[in-house]
Amino acid sequence: VSGLLDGLGTTDALINVFSDRSILDGMLRFEVALARVQASLGLIPNEAAEAIASSAAVDEFDGAAIARDARASGTITIPLVKRLTSRVAARDQAAAAFVHRGATSQDVSDTALILCVVRAQVILRKDHDRVTAALRNLSDAHAASVMLARTLLQPAPPITFGLKAAGWFGAVSRCGERVRTAFAEASVVQFGGAVGTLAASGTHGDEIATGLARELGLRAPEAPWHAHRDRLGFLAAACGVYTGVLGKIARDISLLMQQEVAEVSESGGGSSTMPHKRNPSGCAIALAAATRVPGLVSSVLSGMPQEHERGLGNWHAEAGTIAAIVQATGAALNALAHVLESLQVDPQRMRANIAATGDVVFAERAKVLLTEKLGADATARVIASAIESARHGGNFVDALIQQPSVATALELDEPTSLRDPEAYLGSAEQFRSRLIQKPQ
Amino acid sequence: VSGLLDGLGTTDALINVFSDRSILDGMLRFEVALARVQASLGLIPNEAAEAIASSAAVDEFDGAAIARDARASGTITIPLVKRLTSRVAARDQAAAAFVHRGATSQDVSDTALILCVVRAQVILRKDHDRVTAALRNLSDAHAASVMLARTLLQPAPPITFGLKAAGWFGAVSRCGERVRTAFAEASVVQFGGAVGTLAASGTHGDEIATGLARELGLRAPEAPWHAHRDRLGFLAAACGVYTGVLGKIARDISLLMQQEVAEVSESGGGSSTMPHKRNPSGCAIALAAATRVPGLVSSVLSGMPQEHERGLGNWHAEAGTIAAIVQATGAALNALAHVLESLQVDPQRMRANIAATGDVVFAERAKVLLTEKLGADATARVIASAIESARHGGNFVDALIQQPSVATALELDEPTSLRDPEAYLGSAEQFRSRLIQKPQ
Amino acid sequence: VSGLLDGLGTTDALINVFSDRSILDGMLRFEVALARVQASLGLIPNEAAEAIASSAAVDEFDGAAIARDARASGTITIPLVKRLTSRVAARDQAAAAFVHRGATSQDVSDTALILCVVRAQVILRKDHDRVTAALRNLSDAHAASVMLARTLLQPAPPITFGLKAAGWFGAVSRCGERVRTAFAEASVVQFGGAVGTLAASGTHGDEIATGLARELGLRAPEAPWHAHRDRLGFLAAACGVYTGVLGKIARDISLLMQQEVAEVSESGGGSSTMPHKRNPSGCAIALAAATRVPGLVSSVLSGMPQEHERGLGNWHAEAGTIAAIVQATGAALNALAHVLESLQVDPQRMRANIAATGDVVFAERAKVLLTEKLGADATARVIASAIESARHGGNFVDALIQQPSVATALELDEPTSLRDPEAYLGSAEQFRSRLIQKPQ
Amino acid sequence: VSGLLDGLGTTDALINVFSDRSILDGMLRFEVALARVQASLGLIPNEAAEAIASSAAVDEFDGAAIARDARASGTITIPLVKRLTSRVAARDQAAAAFVHRGATSQDVSDTALILCVVRAQVILRKDHDRVTAALRNLSDAHAASVMLARTLLQPAPPITFGLKAAGWFGAVSRCGERVRTAFAEASVVQFGGAVGTLAASGTHGDEIATGLARELGLRAPEAPWHAHRDRLGFLAAACGVYTGVLGKIARDISLLMQQEVAEVSESGGGSSTMPHKRNPSGCAIALAAATRVPGLVSSVLSGMPQEHERGLGNWHAEAGTIAAIVQATGAALNALAHVLESLQVDPQRMRANIAATGDVVFAERAKVLLTEKLGADATARVIASAIESARHGGNFVDALIQQPSVATALELDEPTSLRDPEAYLGSAEQFRSRLIQKPQ
Repeated sequence: VSGLLDGLGTTDALINVFSDRSILDGMLRFEVALARVQASLGLIPNEAAEAIASSAAVDEFDGAAIARDARASGTITIPLVKRLTSRVAARDQAAAAFVHRGATSQDVSDTALILCVVRAQVILRKDHDRVTAALRNLSDAHAASVMLARTLLQPAPPITFGLKAAGWFGAVSRCGERVRTAFAEASVVQFGGAVGTLAASGTHGDEIATGLARELGLRAPEAPWHAHRDRLGFLAAACGVYTGVLGKIARDISLLMQQEVAEVSESGGGSSTMPHKRNPSGCAIALAAATRVPGLVSSVLSGMPQEHERGLGNWHAEAGTIAAIVQATGAALNALAHVLESLQVDPQRMRANIAATGDVVFAERAKVLLTEKLGADATARVIASAIESARHGGNFVDALIQQPSVATALELDEPTSLRDPEAYLGSAEQFRSRLIQKPQ
Repeated sequence: VSGLLDGLGTTDALINVFSDRSILDGMLRFEVALARVQASLGLIPNEAAEAIASSAAVDEFDGAAIARDARASGTITIPLVKRLTSRVAARDQAAAAFVHRGATSQDVSDTALILCVVRAQVILRKDHDRVTAALRNLSDAHAASVMLARTLLQPAPPITFGLKAAGWFGAVSRCGERVRTAFAEASVVQFGGAVGTLAASGTHGDEIATGLARELGLRAPEAPWHAHRDRLGFLAAACGVYTGVLGKIARDISLLMQQEVAEVSESGGGSSTMPHKRNPSGCAIALAAATRVPGLVSSVLSGMPQEHERGLGNWHAEAGTIAAIVQATGAALNALAHVLESLQVDPQRMRANIAATGDVVFAERAKVLLTEKLGADATARVIASAIESARHGGNFVDALIQQPSVATALELDEPTSLRDPEAYLGSAEQFRSRLIQKPQ
Repeated sequence: VSGLLDGLGTTDALINVFSDRSILDGMLRFEVALARVQASLGLIPNEAAEAIASSAAVDEFDGAAIARDARASGTITIPLVKRLTSRVAARDQAAAAFVHRGATSQDVSDTALILCVVRAQVILRKDHDRVTAALRNLSDAHAASVMLARTLLQPAPPITFGLKAAGWFGAVSRCGERVRTAFAEASVVQFGGAVGTLAASGTHGDEIATGLARELGLRAPEAPWHAHRDRLGFLAAACGVYTGVLGKIARDISLLMQQEVAEVSESGGGSSTMPHKRNPSGCAIALAAATRVPGLVSSVLSGMPQEHERGLGNWHAEAGTIAAIVQATGAALNALAHVLESLQVDPQRMRANIAATGDVVFAERAKVLLTEKLGADATARVIASAIESARHGGNFVDALIQQPSVATALELDEPTSLRDPEAYLGSAEQFRSRLIQKPQ
Repeated sequence: VSGLLDGLGTTDALINVFSDRSILDGMLRFEVALARVQASLGLIPNEAAEAIASSAAVDEFDGAAIARDARASGTITIPLVKRLTSRVAARDQAAAAFVHRGATSQDVSDTALILCVVRAQVILRKDHDRVTAALRNLSDAHAASVMLARTLLQPAPPITFGLKAAGWFGAVSRCGERVRTAFAEASVVQFGGAVGTLAASGTHGDEIATGLARELGLRAPEAPWHAHRDRLGFLAAACGVYTGVLGKIARDISLLMQQEVAEVSESGGGSSTMPHKRNPSGCAIALAAATRVPGLVSSVLSGMPQEHERGLGNWHAEAGTIAAIVQATGAALNALAHVLESLQVDPQRMRANIAATGDVVFAERAKVLLTEKLGADATARVIASAIESARHGGNFVDALIQQPSVATALELDEPTSLRDPEAYLGSAEQFRSRLIQKPQ
């Protein structure tokens, strides 16, 4: 897919990680490591391993041509190994027979994908840490910034922006853990030979697998996993939950940034025609990820029932989708890190927006206070009447306390505090600090 | 996404259609056509239109750099227009003010996407015609080739391979109609200006839109469709149904190609380690599409509720997904065209596989014939006993006719015909010819 | 699934259509119609057909028990036919042998599903007509109600509410056509016998199929479609596009109904705790459909590659999903019909919200007017300065015309019209009337 | 959705868990527990709590009527609380004011959903344990049963059925861990009041929440999670990976059960028309789950970006989807437990199927052995010629050793062992035992 068509679904760093060059590099690292491990175990000549290593400079291989050939053979490994073997043969004819020994195509391409995923993880983790740090800062800075809660997009009793940011922090932190687990699980080498028994390696299969994993900085799994894709499925799924969480933050911010609300603002991007525009461009990237990734996760999960020892088609559909998921997740994290680090928050406007409701959002509070004294029915009546007044431009609290029964029922100092957001925050700060202090 | 990671999800021709160069070309064609139409209406100087046209050679623009800048601004049009304007200004300072006049970013990128989609359609249609022609040929050639039906992957009474191919033909033909309709609906220019009113074009908006559509070979819709994505959603959905149908064909063929079945065979691809292998590589590509595309369709549909006059994030998630869907559909079609044109069919093996069931698949027939004469209970008993015999290596028909009650019940010539596949095809040929003769 | 867990995903009428009783009714209608057609062709005794018809009263069958038995046999038809046969035998022993003759399980359950779908269509169409009528009325009534456009959730130059409603109308109307086509395509009987050849019906298969279709008010397709699910896939996909369109309307309305925006309002629902709340409950139902259905569509499409003459698992996953999709679509339509018929629109608030931007949304217009006279650079400077002033509480137009260069450049009467929404609507009315006048 | 339409997507036990009655029970348990905790803290009279408890007998409430009313109010809690309050008032007028105190609708419905999920987990875990036990038994019993591996649905060098079962075991065990974690994470009470601050509970909110969780056997989370749905998203995702793994097992078994392969067989179900049929009905249920669930997971993930303190529509779409996912997962587990506990395995047929390939699957082995002695080119030639011979009905090994160069190259005893499956299993047993011995 063109960089222009899908350019918001990744970052410069992740384009690099999942580039043709990077895949080729991973495949060649596999072939070189395999030969070196086999040489170190005395299974192939040292000279052969060195000839293979010397012939495997990534820049000598043409990714586009290999991709083209792969459309005929159904795998990218066959054309790569063919080219590598030619290059080795040109250098050392005898060594050519030792290229790719004991491995199957999928060993190479799966391991190359895992190597990319591992590199991507470092990048994602850095932006994850930026996001959590920024959220913690926002939450602490605005622990006392009261604002409207909004449920079903309608105003509701107050919360603090600190609590809102802490809620985001909690969800992001939980996802960080899940994704960390999933990446760790998936960081395994693939080496099983034709059918997952390593039969072509005789009795040395497991020894080679262990050495190969060590050489590549991966774990060696209990057994090859050619047709068992649950680790990748789980990685995809964990990213799917993560982008959902990031999308929630972006949706909240973009709603708060509406000019009619104007409580927060990201630095954003401009318009090609409208000079006044400041668009929530960072939020757009996170929301785009949250829109696309669920379907991509479903593609990966749909492809899991892979036939016998190597799947037909379902396996072939997987690598590009995994790469797209990881990149979209990284793009969302990167965009939100920037958004959150530079978010402008306007506590005055938050307070003003509460007042602009005509104080109706305190009707719940009034109901609680009055029900005990006036009973449910009378309370419902006086509150409904005050709400009606607020709907026509009046103020709910003013209208309420003008009613004689209310005046009698409430203590003297209560009427004024009825519209005091700070007096109706419940456990907000307790929840906030508990969410934030939780170690990541 | 890397060509290596996702190289089976497209073809050389479609990579070209959805390349950065192709998108840039579409965007530049939009800007040039817009200027020319405006000049032809006397709204901007002819010299300006010519300066714009002369500055818009696609090779002078760097897609990767524009994609990079787009990550900051949130749109690929802004960096393109900036570069185009600079180039125009260098040629004719006054003309620079007339670049992109009255258009919004989305006008350019949406139209460029549509232009690519229109080019892709021609390619898909060609392979569609190859697929239907090959299926019709296969069906006609094998109108009399009897084979096992298989339901829930278990053997069942006979059909003909001609009927099977006709069933594929019918579904593919229906999809061809649906996709044709969907492409036709989607072939509309996007030109609405900032908010879809073309206000910046004064009273000339509609006139310009009509000219622009004509210039680009597209239809002019009733109104701009910035946030109304149903035509693209429908195109995606039609492709999703199509890949499902192509996946069904590929699944059937790959099952029939199992060595234990061996009724048909595609020319296929080889293995990097196993010299004896002939893999159903073409089927793999079609099945990969059928695995991936449903999730991609769901991404497009999920993104349809786009906010107000331009969506946030949901719109941004769309273009890459549409391109991936169209390419995967085209890859599946292209692979299957090749598979079907060169499919090897083995009618002898088909007949042998019927016999190898010990003729149990004719138990239904026997039940129909005997029930009238022996009653339901007695029939069930004799059939069950004959089936049991076949399960232990015997032959169902032989075992059945050895039972005295059956010998009596059946006419003399029936026992032999009981195991005759041709005698139990029902309306197969009627259905086959009706499916095939239907004009595409 | 429990009615409580998923009760917003359907309506009373559609619960009825897809109830166990309704499915049983469809299955029994199939068996009765089959027997009657066979009797009319002289293939079974008239008495048998009448005994079957007399034994098929839906209330005599226990849906829950049949569903339970189906979990053992893998199909709901086997336990139903067993019960029906017993009932027929009790009435007329000889007739029992003629129950379900020539049919396979899937013939019965597929046809029953189609009968439900056809009943649902009538319900959906009625609400579709209500929605389009309401939208046309809203568009006509508010052809002159100016309001802010909003792109990427930020204010933009004006449109009319009439144009917005007309855009909704256009998309809904297009979907109405698509869904109508898809329902029509899918309204086909299923009758193929064990493997789709109707072999057990001898030479009468096609004749019976035609009669059966006529009896049930369905079309007879070219051939049975046991493993060709494209018509259902297409129906699902068309509903998916439709719910996307309905979700867009609901998203727009719920955003406009935010108290900070307050331009429109649905009658809505209340809260269990907050007396002041008026929630956009109708929009919630439409948005819930737009959230759920895309994944359901992907389930249907994923299941399309069904093996050979009857799929394994993929077919079994389909009926419940199709029913859920149609019901969610119907729920969304029904909810929106109510929302749109009683939508309150506040043109004064719309106009006030334009003014509340400090008129910055007219910056594009100012840019167009001034660029010709002052050149691009000077124009950009004076506009940026006026925007800055508006950001600090001033008014964009006031700030702009205070600048001497602007005063000189603009004609006397232009400054006042600069902030006149009616003067900057471009082709809005032209587009609106074209969208609305299009025959549905 | 009708039990008949979707009856294979659940089990009797799980229908019960997610029934209307069960949801009502959970909601009523919430209200009773809330009142009791509040009474125990002295916040409401003990008599009120007892009146509420006495009025909350689940059988007194009509689920269908409540679901119907919910379509108007948008929540199932409002009609339930209304009915409960009436019943309490009838018993003790004063107590009615204490019903649902401090809670919001979503507190009740979310917690009721969680209570169902927790009950479901017990059921799923039992079947999970059956599946793993059966797989371990199969793997141990068939550690030495050689069989063809199959890659891309084509025969490949041998494995053991013990290794295949161990691979299934490994994936199922990993999923068991993931799902256990996800269920544990999700087992949290929801109690946040109108906006997640518990403001209506004054300073006692957190204390009540803790008591409520204890009373209901759930965990109390750091904070309410009305709009933070990541725990449910993760549960859905983990189930999605799980059904993928179960689908892989079912796909393998159903392929091995094809009559042409006949290596294993499940007890299965019959056909309504074909007396000889034994269908893989258990596999069908697992494959149906693997087909449906990925789309359902994508629905849940798509709905995660929920607005502010309570989502609009996205939240409403969730509960039914979660229930469907858990039920489908449980249905797949239950079906596979039965399939695996009674799976018939035919080691003789497995061995015969190897021989039936004409021994071509040993071509890889021959290549490894010969390449060292004859060089790559000569080896390729002699092997290709022997494969060609096998393609025409000969035997690969026989044809190979007839070639003089091969006879010379191989030691005397090698030719016979070339076709010995046991001699070409590599690390199969090492992998098998490592997978199986891993503690679950």
